[in-house]
Amino acid sequence: MRALQRIVDPAGVFLSVEDRICYSFDATTFSCIPGVVLRPTTTEQVSGILSIAAEEGVWVVPRGAGTGFAGSSIPWEGSVALSFERMNRVLSFSPKDRRCVVQPGVVNGFLQRYVGQKDLFFPPDPSSLEVCTLGGNVAQSASGPRALRYGSTKDYVTSLDVVASDGSVWSVSETSGGYDLLSLLVGSEGTLGVITAIGLRLVPVPESWNTFMAYFKSLEQASVAVARLSSEGIIPTVLEVMDEVTLRCVEEYLNKESSPGVGAVLFVEVTGSETEVKVLSQRIELTFSKLGQIRYESACTESERERLWILRRSVSPALARVAPTKINEDVCVPRSRLPELVGAIDALARRDRLNIYTFGHIGDGNLHVNIMTDVRNKEEMERVDGCVESLLETTLSLGGTISGEHGIGVAKSKYLSREVGPVGMRLLRDIKNAFDPAGILNPGKILEPLPEARPEV
Amino acid sequence: MRALQRIVDPAGVFLSVEDRICYSFDATTFSCIPGVVLRPTTTEQVSGILSIAAEEGVWVVPRGAGTGFAGSSIPWEGSVALSFERMNRVLSFSPKDRRCVVQPGVVNGFLQRYVGQKDLFFPPDPSSLEVCTLGGNVAQSASGPRALRYGSTKDYVTSLDVVASDGSVWSVSETSGGYDLLSLLVGSEGTLGVITAIGLRLVPVPESWNTFMAYFKSLEQASVAVARLSSEGIIPTVLEVMDEVTLRCVEEYLNKESSPGVGAVLFVEVTGSETEVKVLSQRIELTFSKLGQIRYESACTESERERLWILRRSVSPALARVAPTKINEDVCVPRSRLPELVGAIDALARRDRLNIYTFGHIGDGNLHVNIMTDVRNKEEMERVDGCVESLLETTLSLGGTISGEHGIGVAKSKYLSREVGPVGMRLLRDIKNAFDPAGILNPGKILEPLPEARPEV
Repeated sequence: MRALQRIVDPAGVFLSVEDRICYSFDATTFSCIPGVVLRPTTTEQVSGILSIAAEEGVWVVPRGAGTGFAGSSIPWEGSVALSFERMNRVLSFSPKDRRCVVQPGVVNGFLQRYVGQKDLFFPPDPSSLEVCTLGGNVAQSASGPRALRYGSTKDYVTSLDVVASDGSVWSVSETSGGYDLLSLLVGSEGTLGVITAIGLRLVPVPESWNTFMAYFKSLEQASVAVARLSSEGIIPTVLEVMDEVTLRCVEEYLNKESSPGVGAVLFVEVTGSETEVKVLSQRIELTFSKLGQIRYESACTESERERLWILRRSVSPALARVAPTKINEDVCVPRSRLPELVGAIDALARRDRLNIYTFGHIGDGNLHVNIMTDVRNKEEMERVDGCVESLLETTLSLGGTISGEHGIGVAKSKYLSREVGPVGMRLLRDIKNAFDPAGILNPGKILEPLPEARPEV
Repeated sequence: MRALQRIVDPAGVFLSVEDRICYSFDATTFSCIPGVVLRPTTTEQVSGILSIAAEEGVWVVPRGAGTGFAGSSIPWEGSVALSFERMNRVLSFSPKDRRCVVQPGVVNGFLQRYVGQKDLFFPPDPSSLEVCTLGGNVAQSASGPRALRYGSTKDYVTSLDVVASDGSVWSVSETSGGYDLLSLLVGSEGTLGVITAIGLRLVPVPESWNTFMAYFKSLEQASVAVARLSSEGIIPTVLEVMDEVTLRCVEEYLNKESSPGVGAVLFVEVTGSETEVKVLSQRIELTFSKLGQIRYESACTESERERLWILRRSVSPALARVAPTKINEDVCVPRSRLPELVGAIDALARRDRLNIYTFGHIGDGNLHVNIMTDVRNKEEMERVDGCVESLLETTLSLGGTISGEHGIGVAKSKYLSREVGPVGMRLLRDIKNAFDPAGILNPGKILEPLPEARPEV
């Protein structure tokens, strides 16, 4: 497909296997080498690429930094991997209106610092924030620890420039009349349109904060504490958990002495005006004092806070050393059902004889259940599959969702119909067809199956 | 259609012209008498009605209290008017989780008092809150003065039970995987599905509040004040305006002495913790002291506050006495463009020699532009049409939207394509077709034209 390659400058076209391999994977176990990697620099180029792709029926798989946990950016053989790494500029920034417009390749952490200079901040903070891009954040409606108080990416997108599957360029904003197309595009994982500019709402940096770290005897006790805070009407900014094995793993990674008898740690952070933080802190301390936690620490200076946060932030690198393969499930249940979910995870680990590390955004009822394994061990991988299946069934039976914040992608598409039912599935498919009648945009993601016929690039 | 009538009990079927007339209109100038009025009491009945309607191709127009300003609930000749007045129960209420589930016929004001007993409140507060229903609020994604701080109805809907156009029943929640069908349904004006149960998020009643009323020499000066507050980063809970003619009209209605030299009034209300309110109030007073307002009052006791609010709340009844017909436009522009919009409204009133009363949620950039006229005066109505046309064009040219909070309905469907463009229109139509392939659900609303063929009930 010479025509496709001619649209971007030569530096924007990767044809060698070595180059293409770099765009073949994300943070899951899935991978597939694309036919070509195109790295456009303008909306017009994206439009040109999609016009040709639509005519030829070539598949186009948009991608940010490839940090996703659902395989949403995995390309297919012969497809175009459309990378936004060169569309990484802040297009406009109005501190007065607390708004900015960015290209999809801007890295989340870069934006945080950029707007921080004007005492503003962008709440969604996925753990991969120093790598992941805003295009990917919008495509997945990513969250992060602060989602508890601030909501996820979808709550901050005010407008999008979109290239439709036939190459036509259009815009949608939160004030656009008619059906809410903006909300439909956010979280659509690149299956409905390709985003080339993003309008974002920003918020003022909170005046004050306080961080707590509380040690409990078990994960179940910690989840009871979360339910108690919630029933007291206390909504912190952050409410994170890690279970005993995760804690041990992080302590070892950081060469820290292990805390004896601790089965789970809760991180609680409150932010707001000084008075708010004071009042909330007192209420949290009061709630803690009535519960069976072993001890707690609090941090209100930046350095103490960093000392506590290093534990939470080290989870991913620490876990990476445990086993060659990490199957990261992302289940979410109503907060009041957390103790049941935690009990079920424990039982599954025993039943299937698997090493499971659990941590995550427990304040949202959202736990990341990490099964540590090795894809080369076929017998164990079968037990892993059975465990995941049971975990998702349990989650749904508790009124939960199979994806708290990681999206559906290819990793969970086969479970989606159990969650949304037959009418929901039919509507999702019809919406996909309306936006992408030729089926060229990130096919086989969210909605199975992968279409069969496809020309190679 | 005997089969349709048999689904609900006899008290739920209105066949006489007298009864049907009561369901023929809303708060616009549109009206049309439906073929039958059905008043179901259960989701199953709604499902039964839609199954038959889908088979027979009969149009079904859902309606709440008929307080809408876009004609979204106007039935057509021969259609079923589906009224939810008997589905008016609170299905569940969990103060601990700050959630409730209601039937669509529950009146907004009733819910406010119901949850208020537990110190909770439901932020969306359209002026018609003592009459309008939550089903209608969700269908239109209604707002109200508090939207400035709290957002509109869409920000509070957590789940919906929906009857699809073929009669099948399904549910969708904010955590459902796949595309955001929940956001698509909220604000879809009954054209995509019929809502039979609504999950809502509630918030704690604010601890403290303070209300300001500031008198300015002109509406333009008041809109400059709004832009100033916004640029100072001050976000009140309420920021409402009324222009000189509206103020005079309300003063007369309330038998109050008229305030000399006043061209516009701003209502500003701040809520939050006591400290927050104190700090915000001081900042507002400081901003006011630098501006050219004539004077301002503030109210921090309930009775003083009521005394100020009575002016704002009397706008609708006061205006009703001015002229037989009120054309209520609902335009919204970015706050920084407000002075331009205000200037344009003034120029249009002079150009078309029309009485225009302007008030509304100026903090959101959302003004209600009321043209007072008489539909029987054909010559004047032509000038009104030209004025509306120009007003909407101006709004779009200022980067605004033709509907701030009233929806599109039949009133604005002919202008929608100018706002969303050809790709947007095609997608809106395709989405409508996906949800309602037979075109029986509230046809001709949002999207023109009204389909031609239709069997009568």
